[in-house]
Amino acid sequence: MREFIPPATRFITLPDGFTMRRGGVLDGARVAYEAVGRLNEARDNVVLVLTGMSPDAHITAHEEDATPGWWEHMVGPGRPIDTDRWYVICVNALGSCKGSTGPASVDPTTGEPYGMRFPQLSIEDVADAAAILVRALEVDTLACVVGASMGGMSALSLLVRHPGLARNLINISGAVHALPYAIAVRSLQREAIRSDPRWSHGRYRDDALHYPRSGMRLARKLGMMTYRSAREWDQRFGRARLTGNRRSENRPFDPEFRVEGYLQAHADRFAHHFDPNSYLYLSRCIDLFDLGESCGGTQDAALARLSLDAALVIGVETDTLFPLHQQRQIADGLRKGGTEVQFKALESDEGHDAFLVDVARFGPPIAKFLSLIW
Amino acid sequence: MREFIPPATRFITLPDGFTMRRGGVLDGARVAYEAVGRLNEARDNVVLVLTGMSPDAHITAHEEDATPGWWEHMVGPGRPIDTDRWYVICVNALGSCKGSTGPASVDPTTGEPYGMRFPQLSIEDVADAAAILVRALEVDTLACVVGASMGGMSALSLLVRHPGLARNLINISGAVHALPYAIAVRSLQREAIRSDPRWSHGRYRDDALHYPRSGMRLARKLGMMTYRSAREWDQRFGRARLTGNRRSENRPFDPEFRVEGYLQAHADRFAHHFDPNSYLYLSRCIDLFDLGESCGGTQDAALARLSLDAALVIGVETDTLFPLHQQRQIADGLRKGGTEVQFKALESDEGHDAFLVDVARFGPPIAKFLSLIW
Repeated sequence: MREFIPPATRFITLPDGFTMRRGGVLDGARVAYEAVGRLNEARDNVVLVLTGMSPDAHITAHEEDATPGWWEHMVGPGRPIDTDRWYVICVNALGSCKGSTGPASVDPTTGEPYGMRFPQLSIEDVADAAAILVRALEVDTLACVVGASMGGMSALSLLVRHPGLARNLINISGAVHALPYAIAVRSLQREAIRSDPRWSHGRYRDDALHYPRSGMRLARKLGMMTYRSAREWDQRFGRARLTGNRRSENRPFDPEFRVEGYLQAHADRFAHHFDPNSYLYLSRCIDLFDLGESCGGTQDAALARLSLDAALVIGVETDTLFPLHQQRQIADGLRKGGTEVQFKALESDEGHDAFLVDVARFGPPIAKFLSLIW
Repeated sequence: MREFIPPATRFITLPDGFTMRRGGVLDGARVAYEAVGRLNEARDNVVLVLTGMSPDAHITAHEEDATPGWWEHMVGPGRPIDTDRWYVICVNALGSCKGSTGPASVDPTTGEPYGMRFPQLSIEDVADAAAILVRALEVDTLACVVGASMGGMSALSLLVRHPGLARNLINISGAVHALPYAIAVRSLQREAIRSDPRWSHGRYRDDALHYPRSGMRLARKLGMMTYRSAREWDQRFGRARLTGNRRSENRPFDPEFRVEGYLQAHADRFAHHFDPNSYLYLSRCIDLFDLGESCGGTQDAALARLSLDAALVIGVETDTLFPLHQQRQIADGLRKGGTEVQFKALESDEGHDAFLVDVARFGPPIAKFLSLIW
């Protein structure tokens, strides 16, 4: 088991006895973050970014780590989330393997990595850990919380559990809960990992021979299939074949089409950069989250309770994992509580992943919204 | 390795030296079929059904096998494909494990099952084997060829390779070739099987301990996700949980949602009723088929060349595997050759599998079309 922590990531330590929503406590757990831009004197120019399942806290290049971040073109000086203006804090989710405490971290009670002894993870735990981070950085009120994908769920959970912590919200490709198709996708991804004999019930050894590579590859490929859209692939790959040494003439079941080579390349890159156990925990917590259930009422009641100053809710037409009608549901629910809501349905071909790759479409509405709340 | 042959299935033997399109020959290969209804004296009331990947030749109950067939409500006396009128022949695809020769059949040159030594399979081989069957049954001209899914490809291939063999066509949820999303789905299904160590490079042993069950289960679940639609599952399952002993309280990564239980039940049923090697061959031949390539020209030229009397082309709005625009493409291409085409876009929620389960929607246009050509 291994953690993958960017070099300039910082940490705060959660108070001992951090109680997990579905049982279990963490002692000495850490929350990882990076911050970019300058905190003003009033400490009121803070934008908090809650991530999807896999990103780390390194959202964009900065003085201490010049490598491009996972949202490089969205965050930085003069970019849509403008660090000349905003102090941007990006949190790595609790349960991840990228700095915050998760299954790959050492359990202080045993001196060994938690592995599958890590307590069951909930979006609520991710949100609470983020809220503790904000307080630890001596920020009373966030100007805006930005959450995409799983981060969209975490953002909603943060807002209902910590009223008044933020004035505004940008919710991208999020949902109040997962629907059965998305649950099925993630269930299969977990099954692929758990079926790999090298996973060894979570006690896998982290070397080339013992890492559950084939399960992780399958999980990632299945992910890629739901992150993009069929329409994009029709245009991008069509029926083009792999050429040269990427094609094995005499092995008819090896990759032959370019789309297969593309998936293979993505899967290979991912497989050695994520802890399989952490993947299982994060994936399941997305299935389990239900904003209504979490608040002991309906989702609409929970959303209406928020009464933020303003919210921007963005969805993508081609998203099959968090389909557009789920973003419309968030927008409608927030409006009922009096929040001034802008709802944007974008036409991007890039599906659920569009916010990562289609900054040309996502940048302008985000920049405009942030200008309005400045 | 094992074959799964319905009790009343019949066979014809292909001539020795049956040449496979991508290399290799088969000696003593069989084609399995069942026939229902009565062949008239003119031998011109024949409807040939070419199946998708997994069905056997037992399309409907009849005197020799009263168990319901895979298209029971579509085929029979007074049903849309009316056996009081038509003599219906259903062919099991070459390469299958359900009667026609495939990887699970015994290779006469070794006395052992072919396994992965079976030559690479093409849709063209499936079509040629079906044509030989038709001739062997002393039928000169088919009144109609019906093909759904992979069978839709086989039907087009049959028609271009054997001009004049059929007067009419019903093409359901078919395509002239596979698009990258569908290729990716099948590639992952094959990878799931091939990654299962019990598959043993195709030399798996067919007992409970050695069958590559986990790979076959994953493949089938992924199939189910693409055969139906997210919309259907939203209505059918929502976020309902499994109850009672189907739910394991203390094992958080086991199935918890009803959609997971549904997939598990389907996968368990399938896993022990299909030869994994046969699955690999059939799956790959769908990816490889390309009507244009197959005819040395464009797909439109190939379709235009057919000039049938009439064709009914049906597609389903929610089909993600063989999307509706692919059926529109078939209809448009056939029209250019002068075929009188009816194109039906059905609104079923049941996706690619709709033709199997939504007979209420598919039955009427099929019945009507067959009345017109009677």
